[in-house]
Amino acid sequence: MSEALSEVQALRLHGDARLQHDDRVIVEAPVALLYNGEPFVVMMATPESLPDFALGFALSEGIVASPDEFRLVDVVRHDEGIALHAAIPQARFDALQDRRRGLEGRSGCGLCGVESLQAALRPVPRVAAPTPVRAAVIHAALAALAGQQPLNTHSGGVHAAGFAHDGGLLVREDVGRHNALDKLIGAMAAQAPPLRAQDGFLVITSRASYEIVHKAATAGMAMVVAISAPTDLAIRTAEAAGITLAAFARGGQLNVYAHPDGIAAAGD
Amino acid sequence: MSEALSEVQALRLHGDARLQHDDRVIVEAPVALLYNGEPFVVMMATPESLPDFALGFALSEGIVASPDEFRLVDVVRHDEGIALHAAIPQARFDALQDRRRGLEGRSGCGLCGVESLQAALRPVPRVAAPTPVRAAVIHAALAALAGQQPLNTHSGGVHAAGFAHDGGLLVREDVGRHNALDKLIGAMAAQAPPLRAQDGFLVITSRASYEIVHKAATAGMAMVVAISAPTDLAIRTAEAAGITLAAFARGGQLNVYAHPDGIAAAGD
Repeated sequence: MSEALSEVQALRLHGDARLQHDDRVIVEAPVALLYNGEPFVVMMATPESLPDFALGFALSEGIVASPDEFRLVDVVRHDEGIALHAAIPQARFDALQDRRRGLEGRSGCGLCGVESLQAALRPVPRVAAPTPVRAAVIHAALAALAGQQPLNTHSGGVHAAGFAHDGGLLVREDVGRHNALDKLIGAMAAQAPPLRAQDGFLVITSRASYEIVHKAATAGMAMVVAISAPTDLAIRTAEAAGITLAAFARGGQLNVYAHPDGIAAAGD
Repeated sequence: MSEALSEVQALRLHGDARLQHDDRVIVEAPVALLYNGEPFVVMMATPESLPDFALGFALSEGIVASPDEFRLVDVVRHDEGIALHAAIPQARFDALQDRRRGLEGRSGCGLCGVESLQAALRPVPRVAAPTPVRAAVIHAALAALAGQQPLNTHSGGVHAAGFAHDGGLLVREDVGRHNALDKLIGAMAAQAPPLRAQDGFLVITSRASYEIVHKAATAGMAMVVAISAPTDLAIRTAEAAGITLAAFARGGQLNVYAHPDGIAAAGD
């Protein structure tokens, strides 16, 4: 069985009936990301496609500017979780340390509330204008996504992020929606040849939150299609980034909240 | 209109039909938590019930041990988000600074991967044994929860956490499921008289993740009922804490993954 699933015993109650049964649940584990030996962050994630996750996180968070600046040097399994050790150029590492020191240094000043808020809302890059996509193509991608979620099929409650392109749909799953997107961004970069963000669009099973849109923008994606609701900040971030943002994409319809020019007119 | 909702324009596509319409979406804003003037963390949250959120976060994260150690002194609205300034006892503040310095200090050593993983998995307290609850009472609480989510009704994609007790169901909503639980824990403490965690159980619209179970345990809740899936780590954490964990609680059935003795036999 996949390391991402765990077999457990569950007691099912339905009316007066009680049935002990074998069940499968999704694995959630602490995953530490380390650069040049220094820990940066620990995420709760599903231990599958971890090399994709490590690369995608570094790209979507702007820690490196391109995949060739990133090298996964070790995956260490501890009792407590998994440590992903990566090597990045010294200049990128210094910039990361400066970012961290800057945040720490600020904590003594009188404006710390404002500055910590500013740090949470990083500037968003502007993406290249998209090639308009027909709504029928979007619905086909959503239908394909529903059929490519093996972890969710076995355990429920797992998010999936897919990149729809001319050659099909690339999908990654995780217990966290941001992690699913990071794995996808890493997997796109790791394909041979790499999948370019401007050659397709993102479909995601979750809501469209600020973080989802920000990560998609940093990866250069021009369209984000979410099955569930958008937040106001996600919409404003998509507007600023030039991203076409569609949400509530299900049951043959969808709502477009930013840059509707990314959806082709029905006759096109 | 509530500060938690925002009016936007959306373009609805259904087949060839395109309809411009007014829509409401949930607000997601950076909310900084500061103790004694020092910023601790910024969360993306819905700006409603913020005093409950501030108090509940401090309790569920073990920053203070009881509500009387916490005082919200200011809520400052900036262009970038909202800063919640709280005062806590000097000894609690020193412990928080030590926790932070300890994490920073560790980053230079050779074992940083392991230690950052250990820090992510904090010890979980053991809760008092619950009074068994009948499944019918749980399903009634879930039905009540479905009717007490005004933000979700208007915007979709919002999580709710409810505390079911003899006097009814107390509910809080947020764009983030952990925030909804923190708001609930704060609201319980702020009632007059306070709602005691041992006098009811938690129902939550989301999955049961590690963080949800850990926060519930820290607040002293003996039963967690989630509408969606559990994770393996949530189950193990519930087992260690003595929490009865039920999930997939919908459609008149539920699965119990830890401490099924919290559910009364049908005849009881």
